[in-house]
Amino acid sequence: MPHVIHNIRRPDPQLIAALGQLPTSTIHEAQGHVGAMAHTIRPVYPGMKCCGPACTVRSHGGDNLMLHKAIYVARPGDVIVHDGEDWLESNVWGEIMTTGALQRGIAGLVTSGVVRDIEPIHRKGFPIFSRGVSMKWAAKASLGTINHPVVCAGVLVNPGDIVVGDDDGVVVIPLDRAEEVLAQARAREAREVTMMEQLQAGRTTLELLGLDKLLTQLGLTEE
Amino acid sequence: MPHVIHNIRRPDPQLIAALGQLPTSTIHEAQGHVGAMAHTIRPVYPGMKCCGPACTVRSHGGDNLMLHKAIYVARPGDVIVHDGEDWLESNVWGEIMTTGALQRGIAGLVTSGVVRDIEPIHRKGFPIFSRGVSMKWAAKASLGTINHPVVCAGVLVNPGDIVVGDDDGVVVIPLDRAEEVLAQARAREAREVTMMEQLQAGRTTLELLGLDKLLTQLGLTEE
Amino acid sequence: MPHVIHNIRRPDPQLIAALGQLPTSTIHEAQGHVGAMAHTIRPVYPGMKCCGPACTVRSHGGDNLMLHKAIYVARPGDVIVHDGEDWLESNVWGEIMTTGALQRGIAGLVTSGVVRDIEPIHRKGFPIFSRGVSMKWAAKASLGTINHPVVCAGVLVNPGDIVVGDDDGVVVIPLDRAEEVLAQARAREAREVTMMEQLQAGRTTLELLGLDKLLTQLGLTEE
Amino acid sequence: MPHVIHNIRRPDPQLIAALGQLPTSTIHEAQGHVGAMAHTIRPVYPGMKCCGPACTVRSHGGDNLMLHKAIYVARPGDVIVHDGEDWLESNVWGEIMTTGALQRGIAGLVTSGVVRDIEPIHRKGFPIFSRGVSMKWAAKASLGTINHPVVCAGVLVNPGDIVVGDDDGVVVIPLDRAEEVLAQARAREAREVTMMEQLQAGRTTLELLGLDKLLTQLGLTEE
Amino acid sequence: MPHVIHNIRRPDPQLIAALGQLPTSTIHEAQGHVGAMAHTIRPVYPGMKCCGPACTVRSHGGDNLMLHKAIYVARPGDVIVHDGEDWLESNVWGEIMTTGALQRGIAGLVTSGVVRDIEPIHRKGFPIFSRGVSMKWAAKASLGTINHPVVCAGVLVNPGDIVVGDDDGVVVIPLDRAEEVLAQARAREAREVTMMEQLQAGRTTLELLGLDKLLTQLGLTEE
Amino acid sequence: MPHVIHNIRRPDPQLIAALGQLPTSTIHEAQGHVGAMAHTIRPVYPGMKCCGPACTVRSHGGDNLMLHKAIYVARPGDVIVHDGEDWLESNVWGEIMTTGALQRGIAGLVTSGVVRDIEPIHRKGFPIFSRGVSMKWAAKASLGTINHPVVCAGVLVNPGDIVVGDDDGVVVIPLDRAEEVLAQARAREAREVTMMEQLQAGRTTLELLGLDKLLTQLGLTEE
Repeated sequence: MPHVIHNIRRPDPQLIAALGQLPTSTIHEAQGHVGAMAHTIRPVYPGMKCCGPACTVRSHGGDNLMLHKAIYVARPGDVIVHDGEDWLESNVWGEIMTTGALQRGIAGLVTSGVVRDIEPIHRKGFPIFSRGVSMKWAAKASLGTINHPVVCAGVLVNPGDIVVGDDDGVVVIPLDRAEEVLAQARAREAREVTMMEQLQAGRTTLELLGLDKLLTQLGLTEE
Repeated sequence: MPHVIHNIRRPDPQLIAALGQLPTSTIHEAQGHVGAMAHTIRPVYPGMKCCGPACTVRSHGGDNLMLHKAIYVARPGDVIVHDGEDWLESNVWGEIMTTGALQRGIAGLVTSGVVRDIEPIHRKGFPIFSRGVSMKWAAKASLGTINHPVVCAGVLVNPGDIVVGDDDGVVVIPLDRAEEVLAQARAREAREVTMMEQLQAGRTTLELLGLDKLLTQLGLTEE
Repeated sequence: MPHVIHNIRRPDPQLIAALGQLPTSTIHEAQGHVGAMAHTIRPVYPGMKCCGPACTVRSHGGDNLMLHKAIYVARPGDVIVHDGEDWLESNVWGEIMTTGALQRGIAGLVTSGVVRDIEPIHRKGFPIFSRGVSMKWAAKASLGTINHPVVCAGVLVNPGDIVVGDDDGVVVIPLDRAEEVLAQARAREAREVTMMEQLQAGRTTLELLGLDKLLTQLGLTEE
Repeated sequence: MPHVIHNIRRPDPQLIAALGQLPTSTIHEAQGHVGAMAHTIRPVYPGMKCCGPACTVRSHGGDNLMLHKAIYVARPGDVIVHDGEDWLESNVWGEIMTTGALQRGIAGLVTSGVVRDIEPIHRKGFPIFSRGVSMKWAAKASLGTINHPVVCAGVLVNPGDIVVGDDDGVVVIPLDRAEEVLAQARAREAREVTMMEQLQAGRTTLELLGLDKLLTQLGLTEE
Repeated sequence: MPHVIHNIRRPDPQLIAALGQLPTSTIHEAQGHVGAMAHTIRPVYPGMKCCGPACTVRSHGGDNLMLHKAIYVARPGDVIVHDGEDWLESNVWGEIMTTGALQRGIAGLVTSGVVRDIEPIHRKGFPIFSRGVSMKWAAKASLGTINHPVVCAGVLVNPGDIVVGDDDGVVVIPLDRAEEVLAQARAREAREVTMMEQLQAGRTTLELLGLDKLLTQLGLTEE
Repeated sequence: MPHVIHNIRRPDPQLIAALGQLPTSTIHEAQGHVGAMAHTIRPVYPGMKCCGPACTVRSHGGDNLMLHKAIYVARPGDVIVHDGEDWLESNVWGEIMTTGALQRGIAGLVTSGVVRDIEPIHRKGFPIFSRGVSMKWAAKASLGTINHPVVCAGVLVNPGDIVVGDDDGVVVIPLDRAEEVLAQARAREAREVTMMEQLQAGRTTLELLGLDKLLTQLGLTEE
């Protein structure tokens, strides 16, 4: 198989737009509690959000050669998802690459590694989800893959899967489940809005979720 | 003993109001360098503050059944203090529970676990001190205790103890020491204001704290 | 050798002013990928910056006696650089010390330990780079050194070396290399501005950095 | 209250001898899944075991003055249980203290800190459960408490509580529950022996523990 | 899809026997530097080894219900590979389950969680690779999957893939690559034996691996 | 300066032989509580020991090109001390390199990185002190330095400094202090033997170290 694959299946842009309106936590529940990356993947500054099809990259820890290439393999709207192992002392992305990525219309970066130049990147409005920050340099020495399946922060990501990030972290939606997950997530969102109205009106989660009954079954005693 | 205890001793609300005006670091010093939770317990966003009597909860890691119950055992003004071990990959609290807690007048949450929905929770103004953030789901499967003594982040917390949180972390004041600690903390606060005025006027901590003398005793040499 | 050395070589203030305009990541690259502290050293709040000659301090973990002394050994504009091992549960610096340091014109603190009173310190505008936050108390019991060479967060720091911190972390420039590093960093800065303009105009890092050629040499295959 | 309390209630030596025969994991289950210290507390070498009443010590991180005193407050057969916070870079115990402790008949040490001289200590047969190993020195500068309640590695330990350690970690049995826990643990041990015989004879845990029924209830599907 | 899949493709037993003779590090190199689990997965005691087809299990952190089931889904010679997230404070496997597994001829366990009863398990000769040890109890409350693809410690594992563990960690060989990897690994093993003989005879890796030439190309200077 | 320096000052072999008889903890105390590497540097198996002059190596994390070169720069009896940052997921040393190193008479390896092939290396009797174990591959792509000063695990190491490792960790003795440290360490060793005899005869550390007096001065109260 070639290192780089250019043509991948991508989801309908309307689907992406719709999923990008939903919180990651709701999506994660809607698809059955799978697809959430490890809690160590965080937005570089609070408030960052992204949603788009994954352009997947795998490289050796601390080597960003394939990420440079990926900027020119990804399509506008893509989120680059990078499995760079968990090397926290050399960054794999900075302001130069951000400039290239913004010019190409790339929607964000998710990396199991770390990044630099976070202040100017934040100012330019490019969302990054990573394991932290380091100014130390990246090597540019070894090949990896682009648009092959990768494991990033504990989740299998296929190229074209939809990646959504916000302050709760990053969740991955398999391309073939995207329509179903959107429907489930919207239904759940609606139920939660209703439930929050009921709670504000004085009802309880014990009653609404049947937890009172469960507590009784488990033998809860009170005094 | 029953799992849940409803009637606990609580401190005088004026005492709570007064302690809530003081920095946690000052309270910690005032009570003799005890009662500070581990430094890994942080506000979910900078700037969060809370102060109130502890409604204590113990549950198995990643199981939030007892926390749902606690929302309806706690009284207005209470801070829920949750020993959920140090499981960082499943949250135990989110927006739904926050909505219930705010409706009931609960003053905040301190948990040794992690939480989700942090952006809407922040917007709604509910203070949370936790070990981090994860969107992954909580189980609702096993009993624990409410208003029994718990150990949370290294500190023994009895129900009704006063819990104070700010950007320096969380400190716990035993109910019976609260008056004395308040007095000591205010005295210390006053001394520190005076000392800072003296420092601004050019005096030194070496002189004001007797450190010059101590350094000489220890045999400090200079050149 | 005496514990405390008062007279150290310091860089030209204009050099410090010039280096303080540059991002730490650029300085790190400009001096050949050395001098960056471990990624665990972070600003206490995002946005903090500092630049100045190092007044170096070494003490036993969790003991801040020598830091009190250092406030009165450091000169206006100095950054105190403190090797206090990696003890995260007792702070070594707070509001009182900050007040003294600001009165003395000290430019900031870099410590491998942790600090308290971060909210008022932030309000007063004193930059701190540390391994975290803890309200727990410091001992004042043992001697250390001031203005001897120290190792802080993995980097050898000599007194008078220039220390620069921003959201990417902290980098140390040896005093004798400062002029050369400034020149290199400015040249790099200029090249990066040009490169970013070229990227915005549609050119690629693959072309500008010769990465296309490198990928071909390494045998990259595409489809 | 005085810093040091000499007279504490201790369990019957026969009870201690009997509990010392049982695995920590069985004791932990027998007392209802409470009392296990954090998994970070490990024997210094595999195979170490201890069992005895707790002589509890609290000190500032990295300060072992109170541990020296504790060697002469503890009684033969006691296990010293030390809350020294989680400071991993300065030891609180070494060969000298071990020599004193062995001469006094002390049964072992459990500390939330770290120790040195582990090879000679191992040779002399003194069991230690700790968070690791460091050769760095301890301070001897501040008071703490002996035979007051402490929190060690997440567990409340009262003086005289029974502390048991083996390769699975450390568990604490409240003095008043010791008889009951022994009975439960022996019953559980017996049931487990029987169950392991049944398993060796070809029966399954699915059947013996009713898990088949539970899986069906939860809706398990197979193919 | 059903939760549990009974019939999976398995490799030829001779292939497994042959791969079990090879070091994990050699296999990892032979298949192109992929398939190694995170370095945090370690044998419970030094010297443990296992090799066999994966029976894959996924469960919620700290819940071992599906692992009980897996003992009776796996076939003799299988290695159970368990994605239980990275929850270090509740074990998912102990002596009872080991007894069942040994009776069924299971070849070992690899889990991203932790285990208990390690001393008797070691005595009985059952190899386990895990993230650590904890005596704390597992829940038995929620469904997961058996013989679906899982991600364990950063590696995608399909049922029937070959899993090999030794003191260097755990590596996974995709079923379809097993023959090829065996051939490559044997060739590499042979080359390494030859190279070690040459080194013992006084030749150097600089010469044998062409590193002298590479160093010269990169511009190495010596004095 | 050239990347590689061949001629360095080395200590007298008799000095090395004498220091190699002493425990690291005693040496660390004898030289005034400096020179101990971070506690995360551990022998790969318990019981490993080494002592020799440092041949210092610096390289980018996960790149072992310079270590290959160092095998042929180091002299018989040297310990290679490697600053490879704290990258835990790619090894920098294995059996091949060990074979070369043993043939050259090298006395051991201390690295801030990780290693592979630990079981055969252990069998061949080569001592390694590292941050852990990983089978993942090293890059051979970038230059570093040999026999320049390095910072390894928090300690400044100059070429020719004496490096001693045992189960308590690794300590570094500056070449110019070696004679004095040996004398102090022997004196301390003698004092400790005497003190342990006195303790076995029933005297106490409280008396022998003057701690009783210190406790009284600090105001200790007993009951």
